[in-house]
Amino acid sequence: MHRVRFRDPAGAVRTGRWDGDEIVFSTETYAPEEVTVLPPTDPSKIVCVGLNYANHAEEEGMEIPDRPLLFLKPPNAVAGHGDTITLPRGKETVEFEAEIAVVIGEQCRNVDADDAMDVVEGFTCLDDVSNRDDQRVEQNWIRGKAFDGAAPVGPVIATPDEVPADASVSLRLNGETKQSSSREDFIFSVPELIEEITRYMTLEPGDIISTGTPAGVGPLSDGDTVEVEVEGVGTLEHDVRAP
Amino acid sequence: MHRVRFRDPAGAVRTGRWDGDEIVFSTETYAPEEVTVLPPTDPSKIVCVGLNYANHAEEEGMEIPDRPLLFLKPPNAVAGHGDTITLPRGKETVEFEAEIAVVIGEQCRNVDADDAMDVVEGFTCLDDVSNRDDQRVEQNWIRGKAFDGAAPVGPVIATPDEVPADASVSLRLNGETKQSSSREDFIFSVPELIEEITRYMTLEPGDIISTGTPAGVGPLSDGDTVEVEVEGVGTLEHDVRAP
Repeated sequence: MHRVRFRDPAGAVRTGRWDGDEIVFSTETYAPEEVTVLPPTDPSKIVCVGLNYANHAEEEGMEIPDRPLLFLKPPNAVAGHGDTITLPRGKETVEFEAEIAVVIGEQCRNVDADDAMDVVEGFTCLDDVSNRDDQRVEQNWIRGKAFDGAAPVGPVIATPDEVPADASVSLRLNGETKQSSSREDFIFSVPELIEEITRYMTLEPGDIISTGTPAGVGPLSDGDTVEVEVEGVGTLEHDVRAP
Repeated sequence: MHRVRFRDPAGAVRTGRWDGDEIVFSTETYAPEEVTVLPPTDPSKIVCVGLNYANHAEEEGMEIPDRPLLFLKPPNAVAGHGDTITLPRGKETVEFEAEIAVVIGEQCRNVDADDAMDVVEGFTCLDDVSNRDDQRVEQNWIRGKAFDGAAPVGPVIATPDEVPADASVSLRLNGETKQSSSREDFIFSVPELIEEITRYMTLEPGDIISTGTPAGVGPLSDGDTVEVEVEGVGTLEHDVRAP
């Protein structure tokens, strides 16, 4: 099942299903272009993972960590499918990072890896937009990763049965493929990430764990269109404005 | 005015005033011990500042930064006045850090320092509880600073007129004074912090900016009682459990 949050033509916010070419809520059916797709969840936090693919660690000149490198994006970072994000003003290098994101389904703490898939509602696509100018010089990646619009997410939440264990993840910039990898290439699996994160913090329903990006990251410019595709989920599309 | 959120004896959550020895909501008046004091705000994020006092930077062996060192605590970190926080399991050194916290009153972005006090609802006390074992070895301070209970906050929000420009901030551990300083010793002022943070991110009503800690930080142990006092606000008290 593909769950979608949207604003219907009358302005009401609905949570329905995206079935093929139709968006369905109750007895109403819409074409996707009739509605405004919203971020599929309203997270209290996004817990992001850095360097979770060996080939991206290599391109960044970083060693593979012995436990997950974690960082946070707050709710102000969230943007939706079809949105145009505005990059921070006056930065040289802001880059895209295609990621498979996990949406949490229930409040949880101290979850064992063996039980971790029980707390997963599903998967979605996320672009971990990264302002390298600041990321490279600050201790915590706040100006670098937590700015408004730094986490376009969506378009739907796909239940786990929809997403194969070797699901592909890819990114196209203005139609050209820049990143292409698979969930099989993770250094830390989704259950391992959930176990590690919930040793320290409670996850709430709707919270997101973003699982890191593969090799191929690159810069964004004014007017760019980004597509992040995760097999079994679909394609998140967003545009870019660089003031 | 001192605004307080509390659960009344019937179980209802109220936002009232703490006047001297009384807590007042509508026509009801309570003694503080009759109610459960709750965190005075429900922030979407806490933006924290590191190394904002020269004497604390010195004790940590860090240089004074040329712009604010920022990090985040998510909503799961919030604890309230009178709560017992549970430290992360199996850590050698978890420390207290007394801070003056700013509570934001309205949604804002790109605020000039000259206008910044217009978006401030008031001030409160915060203990930036810090797990040094992990903080010292991780890029982003997530295990170190973002765990459940890492941000006891309260007991009230004092409006800006209640808090002098040279307000003192102090911390007592089991009754013994460990930290004592003043808002005058900030490296970056509250308006400068708001200007810098809102260049990158939208602040929401109820969001917190925690302004850094002065010298004197030290370790917490099982059974400790911590009091953080800010002049014009009052005293936040919390207990500590170390499993």
